Amino acid sequence: MIRRLMALLALTALPPSSAVAQTPLRDQIRHFRERNERAIVRELVDFLALPNVASDLADIRRNATALAAMMTRRGIAAKLLEVDGVPPAVFGELKTPGAARTIVLYAHYDGQPIDLPKWASDPFKPVLRSGPMGPGVQALPLDPPGGRFDPEARLFARSASDDKSPIVAMLWAIDALRASGIPLSVNLKFFFEGEEEAGSAGLGKLLTRYRGLLDADFWIFCDGPVHQSRAAQAVFGVRGVIGANLTIYGPTRPLHSGHYGNWAPNPNAMMVHLLASMRDIDGRITIPGYYADVVPVTSAERAAIRAIPAVEEQLKAELGLGRTENEPALLGEQLALPALNVSGLSGGRAHGGGANVIVAESEAYLDFRLVPKQTPARIQELVEAHIRRLGYAIVRTDPDSITRRARSKLIKVVWSGGYAAARTRLDSPGAAALLRAADQVLGRRIIRLPTLGGSLPLAEFVTVLNMPFAILPIVNHDNNQHGENENLRLQNLWDGMELLGGILARMGREWQAVP
Amino acid sequence: MIRRLMALLALTALPPSSAVAQTPLRDQIRHFRERNERAIVRELVDFLALPNVASDLADIRRNATALAAMMTRRGIAAKLLEVDGVPPAVFGELKTPGAARTIVLYAHYDGQPIDLPKWASDPFKPVLRSGPMGPGVQALPLDPPGGRFDPEARLFARSASDDKSPIVAMLWAIDALRASGIPLSVNLKFFFEGEEEAGSAGLGKLLTRYRGLLDADFWIFCDGPVHQSRAAQAVFGVRGVIGANLTIYGPTRPLHSGHYGNWAPNPNAMMVHLLASMRDIDGRITIPGYYADVVPVTSAERAAIRAIPAVEEQLKAELGLGRTENEPALLGEQLALPALNVSGLSGGRAHGGGANVIVAESEAYLDFRLVPKQTPARIQELVEAHIRRLGYAIVRTDPDSITRRARSKLIKVVWSGGYAAARTRLDSPGAAALLRAADQVLGRRIIRLPTLGGSLPLAEFVTVLNMPFAILPIVNHDNNQHGENENLRLQNLWDGMELLGGILARMGREWQAVP
Repeated sequence: MIRRLMALLALTALPPSSAVAQTPLRDQIRHFRERNERAIVRELVDFLALPNVASDLADIRRNATALAAMMTRRGIAAKLLEVDGVPPAVFGELKTPGAARTIVLYAHYDGQPIDLPKWASDPFKPVLRSGPMGPGVQALPLDPPGGRFDPEARLFARSASDDKSPIVAMLWAIDALRASGIPLSVNLKFFFEGEEEAGSAGLGKLLTRYRGLLDADFWIFCDGPVHQSRAAQAVFGVRGVIGANLTIYGPTRPLHSGHYGNWAPNPNAMMVHLLASMRDIDGRITIPGYYADVVPVTSAERAAIRAIPAVEEQLKAELGLGRTENEPALLGEQLALPALNVSGLSGGRAHGGGANVIVAESEAYLDFRLVPKQTPARIQELVEAHIRRLGYAIVRTDPDSITRRARSKLIKVVWSGGYAAARTRLDSPGAAALLRAADQVLGRRIIRLPTLGGSLPLAEFVTVLNMPFAILPIVNHDNNQHGENENLRLQNLWDGMELLGGILARMGREWQAVP
Repeated sequence: MIRRLMALLALTALPPSSAVAQTPLRDQIRHFRERNERAIVRELVDFLALPNVASDLADIRRNATALAAMMTRRGIAAKLLEVDGVPPAVFGELKTPGAARTIVLYAHYDGQPIDLPKWASDPFKPVLRSGPMGPGVQALPLDPPGGRFDPEARLFARSASDDKSPIVAMLWAIDALRASGIPLSVNLKFFFEGEEEAGSAGLGKLLTRYRGLLDADFWIFCDGPVHQSRAAQAVFGVRGVIGANLTIYGPTRPLHSGHYGNWAPNPNAMMVHLLASMRDIDGRITIPGYYADVVPVTSAERAAIRAIPAVEEQLKAELGLGRTENEPALLGEQLALPALNVSGLSGGRAHGGGANVIVAESEAYLDFRLVPKQTPARIQELVEAHIRRLGYAIVRTDPDSITRRARSKLIKVVWSGGYAAARTRLDSPGAAALLRAADQVLGRRIIRLPTLGGSLPLAEFVTVLNMPFAILPIVNHDNNQHGENENLRLQNLWDGMELLGGILARMGREWQAVP
């Protein structure tokens, strides 16, 4: 589900966190961790030593069984959720006497394929090193003198960050609370997916089959990295996405532009007129009816966006931009709106001297970013109705000569991908409770992102389960996720334990307190 | 000068000629030729045996000397026109007592480079074959029994068609007239260029230096092929051309369209709006002032266009077109107007699934086809003024980051090529005389093309010499000009002699007769 979250989150530029006034709760989790670093790392290392490439079902099952055992050891009722032909999800449940709310913690335990020659060491024999790969980096012992690790040390292995360490952080956060005598404030469920890196093809079936078991009040997705400043952030939405490949047809073969120029139809000229009719240069979409379904940004979301430290001028300098679309709107405001991006254009050679031809075809690839409550199906309808109003006949495959002759304007439209946006209101009870809990444990306001501009198929969860959610990453941004030498910075594991533990201890109480 | 004439003329689709009622004049030239086929072919073969690749100056000079000798043998005062570093042009003059008008016959004697492995035989050892290359084609003797050749036989050699055979046709046409006691009706000059296939870089200098010598009333360019139906045609114009490469700049690196979509400027979206503002989908150019300099099509030109047998429906079927621009305007009418062709478009991957990026640059290549009296300089002014009115700053090289930051809209405009149109009015005295002469010798109306849609740098002649002109091709359309196995179909040589001889005998008298 969160295959691209690394890339998504790495791009939300925000300033470094300021100094933090720590709370006693956080201190308690920290002290526990300081006494148990060796054991925490040992459990993570053992888990990482199990090969977990998503396509190897036998390996995946070994991981699922081991993970269930890690949960059972802690008294968490664990079981594998099974659908034929789908890698099992590992489910667990921990009831809390007196708790009114139920939270599901999500992570995935499967990993990306391996390009072995690129790895500095075996991806399934975890190695601790003094820092990121580079000159002077050294291997460190997994059993350090005094039992304490350098927090800048990094553990290298497949899934060290994506997502086995968030799972270990969750389990040890619970251990820490228990050891400190701090009760959970919520009923807890765990949903650990086993085929995320293989595309989550069976996820819908799993969610549908186990809908009752997964009943809850809120989902927290512990996937992806924190901000590159290392500050924690909570994200409450993603845009949906759908792609369209458009092909406009001219003559069946390229023609000399002298002989046929302004007689034979020019598909590039037709394409630029079509695209220009669909959006303006400030990003406003001019397809009739396009904004009808759009849920306006709430005042809470607008306030959160405005509270994010301004990054626009820095980004403009970095990217060499003299303007932005719809200026002076903020990046965060723009990303909460629908977008129509002309991602690709192709119609004959444009670089250097051209060929002086009327091309046979002009192609464009558009990606539409959706916001609540736009649906891919409705976007397709609106776009195609607009195209037809301009006189085009729409086909789905390359037309034959008879079809071309019969239609004065012909376009092939092929849709790809497609899922809706998902957004949880910041002022909804669950989100508000999560934010208050996070603020308290951090001793400052956690960064609130109403939505990512990017897209994740969270709609699967939202559609099937109709659940509010947040994305709460813990791992370092420079973790080489999906690539070679994937790694976890230990301090991120420690910080993640504190953030997750604090939220589990407080979120239920905050939720009760919200009117 | 007429490097691309082959391609240009091959594309003017016209129906086959109807049966021809031949005139006595034509018969006289034919009878002479029938008695001299062996000698005509021998002179052509000897000429073709001289390597003439345009870049080999020593070879070129040997050709020039031989050509001057061929002329001198006929009493034509011949000499080489020299400018330092430029292959010589061969000039000749033949005065006609009592003639009031002077005609210049143009051809070029240099040839295209050779890709030897592709040739079936040595390009400079001419071979006669029974037809075009293909199954069953046979070599034939150059000294046939009875002295007559199969008119469908073809002579294979570099420049067999482009342009040595038109030169031989001119010289033997004069021989035929003399042998028949038919006087020329005009003073004749010959201008045989020696660097046409190398780009005519020195042509302007030659024309300027020998302006006085080249003084005349009309130029006839014997270059390029006749129509593929084998019908003769006279062409009185070409469109000018100028190319522009446009680059619009977005972010300095491609950005994720989710994170930055409708915040970072999208150069593809800017490009489609810019191009859509420049022309409509019917070919009408919407740049303010664009048509101000355009000389309207004359009634004689319009009548000639309408007299060309309709080819539009056949072309639409062949090209799979359901419409044409500005329908029901005829092809010939459209080609007599200015054109703005979006020849190339390039801005990110468009085929199949796109990359979901905001690209860093969007490029387009435009070619503008000019008509009298548009000039490349004025077109550049108009286009750039239009671009600036839309808020763009124009640069000529890729801008640095500071320039990008400083400008809200930035475009690189690089112009290429560039020469004006040339067109001789069909109702001008010289053109009218040529057409009447051609009609009489053919026994039917020669096909009249007011202008090619394509472009040739005839403006060099028009600008320097300010001369009316016609293009009068004689060689077969399927001659493999510029490629391997270039060839001349003998019947085209015979027909060319008759057409040229007839025109030289009559054009001056017709000119006198025109009021």
